[in-house]
Amino acid sequence: MQKILEEVLEENRHLAKKGRVASYIPALAKANPHHIGICIAEINGNMYKAGDADAKFTIQSISKVIALMLALMDNGEKVFEKVGREGTEDPFNTLYKLDLPHTEKPVNPMINAGAIATTAQIKGDKFGRILELIRRITGNLSIDYSREVYISEKETGEKNKAIAHLLKARGIIEGDPDEVLDHYFKQCSIEVTACDLAKIALFMANGCQGLPSYGEIDRKTLYRNLLAIMTIGGMYNVSGQYAAEVGVPSKSGVGGGIMASVPGRMGIGVFSPPLDENGHSIAGYGIMKSLSHRLDLSIF
Amino acid sequence: MQKILEEVLEENRHLAKKGRVASYIPALAKANPHHIGICIAEINGNMYKAGDADAKFTIQSISKVIALMLALMDNGEKVFEKVGREGTEDPFNTLYKLDLPHTEKPVNPMINAGAIATTAQIKGDKFGRILELIRRITGNLSIDYSREVYISEKETGEKNKAIAHLLKARGIIEGDPDEVLDHYFKQCSIEVTACDLAKIALFMANGCQGLPSYGEIDRKTLYRNLLAIMTIGGMYNVSGQYAAEVGVPSKSGVGGGIMASVPGRMGIGVFSPPLDENGHSIAGYGIMKSLSHRLDLSIF
Amino acid sequence: MQKILEEVLEENRHLAKKGRVASYIPALAKANPHHIGICIAEINGNMYKAGDADAKFTIQSISKVIALMLALMDNGEKVFEKVGREGTEDPFNTLYKLDLPHTEKPVNPMINAGAIATTAQIKGDKFGRILELIRRITGNLSIDYSREVYISEKETGEKNKAIAHLLKARGIIEGDPDEVLDHYFKQCSIEVTACDLAKIALFMANGCQGLPSYGEIDRKTLYRNLLAIMTIGGMYNVSGQYAAEVGVPSKSGVGGGIMASVPGRMGIGVFSPPLDENGHSIAGYGIMKSLSHRLDLSIF
Amino acid sequence: MQKILEEVLEENRHLAKKGRVASYIPALAKANPHHIGICIAEINGNMYKAGDADAKFTIQSISKVIALMLALMDNGEKVFEKVGREGTEDPFNTLYKLDLPHTEKPVNPMINAGAIATTAQIKGDKFGRILELIRRITGNLSIDYSREVYISEKETGEKNKAIAHLLKARGIIEGDPDEVLDHYFKQCSIEVTACDLAKIALFMANGCQGLPSYGEIDRKTLYRNLLAIMTIGGMYNVSGQYAAEVGVPSKSGVGGGIMASVPGRMGIGVFSPPLDENGHSIAGYGIMKSLSHRLDLSIF
Repeated sequence: MQKILEEVLEENRHLAKKGRVASYIPALAKANPHHIGICIAEINGNMYKAGDADAKFTIQSISKVIALMLALMDNGEKVFEKVGREGTEDPFNTLYKLDLPHTEKPVNPMINAGAIATTAQIKGDKFGRILELIRRITGNLSIDYSREVYISEKETGEKNKAIAHLLKARGIIEGDPDEVLDHYFKQCSIEVTACDLAKIALFMANGCQGLPSYGEIDRKTLYRNLLAIMTIGGMYNVSGQYAAEVGVPSKSGVGGGIMASVPGRMGIGVFSPPLDENGHSIAGYGIMKSLSHRLDLSIF
Repeated sequence: MQKILEEVLEENRHLAKKGRVASYIPALAKANPHHIGICIAEINGNMYKAGDADAKFTIQSISKVIALMLALMDNGEKVFEKVGREGTEDPFNTLYKLDLPHTEKPVNPMINAGAIATTAQIKGDKFGRILELIRRITGNLSIDYSREVYISEKETGEKNKAIAHLLKARGIIEGDPDEVLDHYFKQCSIEVTACDLAKIALFMANGCQGLPSYGEIDRKTLYRNLLAIMTIGGMYNVSGQYAAEVGVPSKSGVGGGIMASVPGRMGIGVFSPPLDENGHSIAGYGIMKSLSHRLDLSIF
Repeated sequence: MQKILEEVLEENRHLAKKGRVASYIPALAKANPHHIGICIAEINGNMYKAGDADAKFTIQSISKVIALMLALMDNGEKVFEKVGREGTEDPFNTLYKLDLPHTEKPVNPMINAGAIATTAQIKGDKFGRILELIRRITGNLSIDYSREVYISEKETGEKNKAIAHLLKARGIIEGDPDEVLDHYFKQCSIEVTACDLAKIALFMANGCQGLPSYGEIDRKTLYRNLLAIMTIGGMYNVSGQYAAEVGVPSKSGVGGGIMASVPGRMGIGVFSPPLDENGHSIAGYGIMKSLSHRLDLSIF
Repeated sequence: MQKILEEVLEENRHLAKKGRVASYIPALAKANPHHIGICIAEINGNMYKAGDADAKFTIQSISKVIALMLALMDNGEKVFEKVGREGTEDPFNTLYKLDLPHTEKPVNPMINAGAIATTAQIKGDKFGRILELIRRITGNLSIDYSREVYISEKETGEKNKAIAHLLKARGIIEGDPDEVLDHYFKQCSIEVTACDLAKIALFMANGCQGLPSYGEIDRKTLYRNLLAIMTIGGMYNVSGQYAAEVGVPSKSGVGGGIMASVPGRMGIGVFSPPLDENGHSIAGYGIMKSLSHRLDLSIF
């Protein structure tokens, strides 16, 4: 396994040169484009890593999965009254459909509009609870958010502000949209490593076992929703292509991370900052393809 | 297993009363709303059936899977230059996106626009080859199409005609759109039973093994595309919800059928004509939920 | 006046070189790009012409005004239950809005979808009555349609076919969409001269006086609708810009003609085949700007 | 004339009962639904009024015309690089098109998105200059804005906030969107009377004569743009219907006002708070129809 990881990492390292580090948030542009890492956490407890598996990066959209987890525990499947769970060919920051009269809610919790509508449904201190849950699942109490990235997102996230105010205008979120957005920007700024992601992925691959309580949802409904929704929308508007090519429920973030859960087998964390035109780690996508073929990971 | 099938069938029979038999094509409105059947074909060769598993009905949109199979064998993954493989929240007969300048192709081969663009890519006698492949996979040489339903579709399918001409105007299909549509209407009019569907589903669940040739695609790429695309879009704009609730790659048709492939385990055919508002067999959906829970079928 | 016409024609002749003759219909591509003509018919009976004012060309979209005239006489303002009378930024062949649930009808009778929905509301022999009315208004009984252009449109008008079938699917047109389209293709193929257009324009500028009957509408409501709708949409998605720059209710056609009515003063016909990117005669637009400035024609 | 005004007012007074006072901004809901007034200012200097022509109300969207006037004087027709001048069937607060890749700018300066993009182009103190210009044109130095309405708009205008941030994200407005919006909310909160509106309308009907300077635009281009754009979009998505029925360049506001310019003849101000479903004063629309018929005001 260790050898496979190292081979796969080297085979895909060159892809990073074809991508571009996210620059729409100034603080993200500072990421080291040469960083590349893989971590696998198996259900039997073994962990394997290669490359920069312990380098920190911001979790970005991968936090949407944790937000969904909490929203489901707080509200059960009522969450889906405010956000759908379907795929889409529209990009991650789309909002036009929410201005059409027949649209009731954002298409899924993985695009920005749906993620903001999901975070809005978390009770109490939304960001605080997301951070706490990530710490609990990973057992890594040192995880925190980057003030610099958070402030940078807050200052420049015009599209997300448009989305939040539109959600408010449509009655999809309650409370102050700027406040919800503040939690959302913070959750995206949480810093993790590929190994942290592998542990979160393993937690879901293992049926979300081990929490003291699941609130308003039962454990099976929880993890099936999470894995199904990652499959349907975790890779945005190439989720279907990714399902055919990789076949593992996954979520990517513009920080360069990809988190992948192989049901009943393992969790995977991958990290390489340069992105393709859809906003996914370009080497990360390649690594996932290689791993899926080498380890026969596809659920299909 | 036999007992489970019968129980599941009885538990869900009442749902049919809440649905409505498809009426947009006059000939479909004649279907018997009381028909209900299940058939399971296991990978070990066992078959189980309950209710009207041998009653005939038209395959309708389930034929889109067979058309995709042939288009992939004829063209390899080049098929996806003319049709995407992403999910959507838009209904099965949507066309508006194809009139927006930035849209290049129909979102997936499971909605009507994508299916017409898929059938158009089959070489030679498109309908003839679809029928032949269904006969070969099921081993049922008596399968044929219903002239009455075909003529009824042809006379009334205004939306599909609009789609075909728009695809032609956009350069997505070549040749005469009326001719492609003629093949499409015929393929939708093929009459099958729940057991025929179970056999086709088993064929995919078993990795599409047993064909003399796979043309321009390798077998693994073929079945992974089929299963992934059914998951992403087989149940149209509730595919994601269905993935969370049932978790089995499936395709439904307005004739009342649902075809479901459990990878490595079994194929399932379900039949009950009354439909829900999204165009799926309402009792069929219920049966699939029950079967998934009772037999632990979810891929997630 | 004669001198002004000749000067204006020469000043704008060079613009034709920047445009391109319509080629989406093969027969249209044969038009002579060097043809250019102006004709003015004043309310006092005087007529002035310059250049190729007697050269024939197909009326194309300018026929939409005549179709609207007849539909209004046949149905009164009930016409607007099936077609709106608002402007739009979408191009002349747009159809996507008709596939959105909240859209009830095409936006106006000047875009193709609205024109087809308008022609569909003419009673009896739609094309025959359009031709007859044009002959009556112009007093030119030799006006007829071009079989070659008609057949060419019929063979290649895929977008219009998509529109007609979508209108049928939405219940906006009754009867056979292919038949309505046949009338529509014929009406677009009527051959006229700049002077014929000037006479039709004068008829409206003069309050549509002189018809034996106005059917279901009164004369004032008729001409005010015609002039208002030409202002709002006669130049498609540059109607507003044209209203600011020229300020005369007008309608253009891809055959290279522009017909303009100056209320209470005159009718103008302009002709030059090369088109700009919005489908308007490029020199024709320039001529209308010059005439408006020289003769102070703006209604604003 | 005085008699006509009084008759027209009484004939249309009952319409107010069918409408509803704007309530989306809490402070607007306090308007007196029984108020109704008309004021006409003729080009020869005569003024006529009926009913509550001196009652104050907030100018709301009518301020968009003044903002456009200033933006044109500051930038000339370069204004139209950031906002179009076409009609639309979409409602006044639409934003979806701005999220589609092929859309470059808001459709016109009369819808909210276009108005915000227009105000953003005014140099210096945007609101201050709008107020000053209104005072100058009306000669009424006591005109000011309502702090209560301004604060109410600012607290509740979620859709406008979404629009402003989207305009920023798309690069259509520069500078701080919240600051532009602050000016916009203030300009909408300016309190005027029907007679103030009549004077502004007269100013345009008279060719915008009398300003010390027109900045980057010539006077004729200025007033023709203003009148054309009011015709194309001043009544939002019923501008075309209004053009056919009334035929006078006009602008309405949700405060209940309508301002109408009859080129070369007169300016009209109308006021009655209850609105129809498109956001226009319902009695005001009726009064404009009556006045147009009685005084033969249509430009068509």
